Amino acid sequence: MKHEINLSNIDIHTDLAIDVIDKISSLDGVKQVIRNVDGVSITDVKLEKKNSLNKKEGSYITIEFDDVTDTTNYNKVKNVVKLELNSLMCKMNIKDSDTCLFIGLGNAKSTPDSLGPKVSKDIIVTKHIYDLGDLDSKYRVVSVISPGVSANTGIETSDIVESIVKKIKPNFIIAVDALASGSIDRVNKTIQMTDTGIHPGSGIGNARKEISKSTIGIPVIAIGVPTVVDASVIVADTINYMYKHYAFNKEYSKNPKSKLTFNNVNYLNKNIVINTKDKEDLFGLIGKLNSDEVKILINEVLNPIGYNLMVTPKEIDFVIDRLSTLISCSVNETLHDI
Amino acid sequence: MKHEINLSNIDIHTDLAIDVIDKISSLDGVKQVIRNVDGVSITDVKLEKKNSLNKKEGSYITIEFDDVTDTTNYNKVKNVVKLELNSLMCKMNIKDSDTCLFIGLGNAKSTPDSLGPKVSKDIIVTKHIYDLGDLDSKYRVVSVISPGVSANTGIETSDIVESIVKKIKPNFIIAVDALASGSIDRVNKTIQMTDTGIHPGSGIGNARKEISKSTIGIPVIAIGVPTVVDASVIVADTINYMYKHYAFNKEYSKNPKSKLTFNNVNYLNKNIVINTKDKEDLFGLIGKLNSDEVKILINEVLNPIGYNLMVTPKEIDFVIDRLSTLISCSVNETLHDI
Amino acid sequence: MKHEINLSNIDIHTDLAIDVIDKISSLDGVKQVIRNVDGVSITDVKLEKKNSLNKKEGSYITIEFDDVTDTTNYNKVKNVVKLELNSLMCKMNIKDSDTCLFIGLGNAKSTPDSLGPKVSKDIIVTKHIYDLGDLDSKYRVVSVISPGVSANTGIETSDIVESIVKKIKPNFIIAVDALASGSIDRVNKTIQMTDTGIHPGSGIGNARKEISKSTIGIPVIAIGVPTVVDASVIVADTINYMYKHYAFNKEYSKNPKSKLTFNNVNYLNKNIVINTKDKEDLFGLIGKLNSDEVKILINEVLNPIGYNLMVTPKEIDFVIDRLSTLISCSVNETLHDI
Amino acid sequence: MKHEINLSNIDIHTDLAIDVIDKISSLDGVKQVIRNVDGVSITDVKLEKKNSLNKKEGSYITIEFDDVTDTTNYNKVKNVVKLELNSLMCKMNIKDSDTCLFIGLGNAKSTPDSLGPKVSKDIIVTKHIYDLGDLDSKYRVVSVISPGVSANTGIETSDIVESIVKKIKPNFIIAVDALASGSIDRVNKTIQMTDTGIHPGSGIGNARKEISKSTIGIPVIAIGVPTVVDASVIVADTINYMYKHYAFNKEYSKNPKSKLTFNNVNYLNKNIVINTKDKEDLFGLIGKLNSDEVKILINEVLNPIGYNLMVTPKEIDFVIDRLSTLISCSVNETLHDI
Repeated sequence: MKHEINLSNIDIHTDLAIDVIDKISSLDGVKQVIRNVDGVSITDVKLEKKNSLNKKEGSYITIEFDDVTDTTNYNKVKNVVKLELNSLMCKMNIKDSDTCLFIGLGNAKSTPDSLGPKVSKDIIVTKHIYDLGDLDSKYRVVSVISPGVSANTGIETSDIVESIVKKIKPNFIIAVDALASGSIDRVNKTIQMTDTGIHPGSGIGNARKEISKSTIGIPVIAIGVPTVVDASVIVADTINYMYKHYAFNKEYSKNPKSKLTFNNVNYLNKNIVINTKDKEDLFGLIGKLNSDEVKILINEVLNPIGYNLMVTPKEIDFVIDRLSTLISCSVNETLHDI
Repeated sequence: MKHEINLSNIDIHTDLAIDVIDKISSLDGVKQVIRNVDGVSITDVKLEKKNSLNKKEGSYITIEFDDVTDTTNYNKVKNVVKLELNSLMCKMNIKDSDTCLFIGLGNAKSTPDSLGPKVSKDIIVTKHIYDLGDLDSKYRVVSVISPGVSANTGIETSDIVESIVKKIKPNFIIAVDALASGSIDRVNKTIQMTDTGIHPGSGIGNARKEISKSTIGIPVIAIGVPTVVDASVIVADTINYMYKHYAFNKEYSKNPKSKLTFNNVNYLNKNIVINTKDKEDLFGLIGKLNSDEVKILINEVLNPIGYNLMVTPKEIDFVIDRLSTLISCSVNETLHDI
Repeated sequence: MKHEINLSNIDIHTDLAIDVIDKISSLDGVKQVIRNVDGVSITDVKLEKKNSLNKKEGSYITIEFDDVTDTTNYNKVKNVVKLELNSLMCKMNIKDSDTCLFIGLGNAKSTPDSLGPKVSKDIIVTKHIYDLGDLDSKYRVVSVISPGVSANTGIETSDIVESIVKKIKPNFIIAVDALASGSIDRVNKTIQMTDTGIHPGSGIGNARKEISKSTIGIPVIAIGVPTVVDASVIVADTINYMYKHYAFNKEYSKNPKSKLTFNNVNYLNKNIVINTKDKEDLFGLIGKLNSDEVKILINEVLNPIGYNLMVTPKEIDFVIDRLSTLISCSVNETLHDI
Repeated sequence: MKHEINLSNIDIHTDLAIDVIDKISSLDGVKQVIRNVDGVSITDVKLEKKNSLNKKEGSYITIEFDDVTDTTNYNKVKNVVKLELNSLMCKMNIKDSDTCLFIGLGNAKSTPDSLGPKVSKDIIVTKHIYDLGDLDSKYRVVSVISPGVSANTGIETSDIVESIVKKIKPNFIIAVDALASGSIDRVNKTIQMTDTGIHPGSGIGNARKEISKSTIGIPVIAIGVPTVVDASVIVADTINYMYKHYAFNKEYSKNPKSKLTFNNVNYLNKNIVINTKDKEDLFGLIGKLNSDEVKILINEVLNPIGYNLMVTPKEIDFVIDRLSTLISCSVNETLHDI
């Protein structure tokens, strides 16, 4: 079936630049720096116009962290997000006097897609006070909309945004949305910031017309958190783990006394080399495919059956609450002098 | 204190034309017809440009009913609302092919103000399907927005509506909002429809820039339900009831054997004449004021203290659910051929 | 009508001991101390078995404060609540090792009644972890229930609580509920703590069987916040303000140059003496009644009409959120060593 | 790896009897009848004490249907559910005069787990009215609780139920909960009714102590709907589809002119024979395992990595609303004579 795979139109559903980078070898037109602040990993990716990711030119900041339901960790991440948002706004020459339109994208009724609306509820809104003329100087002029999703409004979300921007003329936009991830590991454990704009509903809904400087005419900062993965992703990931598990398993079983603990061991932490022979023994023809090809095949297999599935952690409701508080605090403290 | 009352700037807070009509004697420029369909009372008021209500010229249809939590009653009212909405759309020359923007006004988070957002969640949206080109002929092209309230968005609601209308160019608007009533009796028991437009937030929030044909440029049907009354209203109403209660009380006490039942009697149903003497005995100077003057006085008394109170029935949550279902069904069945 | 008033069965709807104290002159069997911590007023009332309030013997701590939507103020109040809860638990000889059942009373669907359920969502629950055997020593064994209201469950709330207590045998109970206030000034600006127990639904619903040491058999700490007032209360309060306003008005009008500012003045701050003559001139027979008698009369007037109204501030949704966070934090920090 | 598979302790996570029946060949102690009413398939399974499913003895009624968001279909299913619930109650000798405690199991905050609490909100509650003595004869005495989940209460859900049953002494229980399914096809498209009781939280949470006649002492009717599948299920299902897709693919590719349509074809509808050779070619060693063995292997692979994932349709929020309305209507119309 290999011949059927067409690498030119690879379409693994992910909204994370870093997912793509992980996958490709050549990095032409890609500048990447990885830092580690207080246990939180930050990857700065700068894409030039021509780049091997076929992604939009611009800056992508990817913040990766562990469970934010842990308070200490929560505070670390919050500070990093605040710092990175601040420096991104500087790079984009956004001034303290610039007015902001905050956009909470997504469907408030669907938990994994409710991040945007949840954050927008906690953003400190000031434009209506400013319009009355008595805004404290430490506050920026900020307005907020939560435009909903096309399936519920019947309107292209980008059309709503564009028309409101025309009317109230903010200097820049910050948009928050839930994203889809290309791998389970990053779900709820990654925040991506970019100056390249955003596609409403790319996470849970169907990707819509983009909201970006080129479409709206003002700078757009997009903050995204992957909250779901496609069914195909989890299948492909699992097949991958099966290779590792198999190899680890073979290795391990040579050592009798380790047998006892076997089932409790997280083999992902181990350093295991998977050779082609193992893959083909275990998975036959499938074993001959690389991980992208597997995903494409899985999509070919699942799409015609018409499933429209998403995979989320069971504790999603709780985690979304924490993440939206984290982001709204970071944004408020960056937009306003509080 | 009478001299301080200035009838020219009477400002009793009500959004119901019928409240004003009840209050005034002269009805120059006011055509009024009252019908009764199946126990539901319908008042058609047609205001000419010059009218003694100082209200906007146009049609006001007021539907008054009892408890909609009773299923039989619910269905009666639903049918009336559907019929009246239909005939209003005819009068306004709205064609089956005309596209509609439905607007759910109000604050989803505040129960008495959540009517608009609640209704909009259940409106059948079709524009996004139509844009893909395969809309069943029995459906009208409908889009829906729930713009939120200025206090949460920082943006004039009418500005949001105006800019979206400019972009997606609907042929007409249906807007639903919670209203304030001038009397307790009408709360949750009245639906007002008008072709004169609406003031977002006039009910619970502060009245904002109007949404009407003159401001937006397309026909606007406003559907409103009074869900709250101002504190001043309930005080004035109660003082009124005290007159009646006092008069009834005097009358009754002459008849000894009725004594027993006294406290269970709803004296409002009784036919009681209140004479000026009684009023002044009971209420002194206050007794000399008419009910408008009392309300003005009460506002004078309460405003400087800075209370911002609303009065609602305790069962408001349940009633709002029923009313929003009633309205969304009526609107769906009127907009679409279902 | 005075003859009709029967002071023995005075029934002004309030759940606040302090409301009653304000009203009565003799304070037999009542020990009262008022402190002021950091701008927050704390009133300790100790009622002996025989007391002129006809209220249950025990301690009532009333914490009065301004707008908790102000962050500085919020923190002040939070610390006071924490301290007072702590000292109340000490007085009741509750040990660090005692297990707690937290009860969030009220109707989650009705905003002013949702305080209890909202707080209970944020209480740190540990019993299920303890039952597995690995609870960190700094945490107390805590379980939480939100039993709902009788109207929705069909079950006496106190029966639910009693039966669960029998089963899981906690050492003490903390119950939070929304209350009704006897005066507008205290709504959302008072927290009452007592060791005398609580009547579920006394605030918005109908008072039900009491939850207290005498009914349940273990110590019960009740924390209540008045979130509504009855319609009769606002009418009576307003009539009272009308007296003051009238007197102030007369006084003021002597001084011509003050005329201009008149309407902006909060006459409540002024020191105004109301004489009987004024009251009777303004309000006739009503003016002859004392404020309790007025409330009783108003109840007599409103009850037969069958209104079931509540009065809340328009910003209730936002304030309830803040108050529930304030209380859940205080309780968590008191129950657990965090 | 085959040697590692131990069929005695097969633990594929499913709460559906029918999932297990599909999987096993021998059906000792299993009586199964399949009917089809108006396009809705109903499977009656009667398990004797000793049965090859290792499941509890009793009746399992499984109702399978298509999308209930289609109104016609919704009504068909509703009627079937009503009829089956009725006949199950008859079989269990539940009399019209028997009092019912309805239990809505699950976590209201987690969409796929919110079915129980959602249904319970719409059950007609009458016990509190009956206790006042004036219940209309057409209504049964019904009370409702929504005990929440152990993770939020700290209390075993079955303990809450047991203690309340002891107190209010209902004659029988109807419990509704969200379940986990062993296959994607059945998610949101199956309703299982049984007289064998239920394990709270078996769907999304961790299975807890059972609620059944043997533990609580009164008849328990459990109504469950699978709303999620485990990650391992979707992987196993997909691998299965890959076989079919591969076989279909080979078959198809012989026929050139069909090439064009290839990708739009739902190969599941086709009649395809998968031979062992194909499986092993495609999947190597994995191809040698049967579907249970694959699931066990996948669990072995995923568990040590510590993922806690669930798979749901993206439209879950909307579907859960419809299903809860369907069930609450069916239950109301069965419990009460309305």
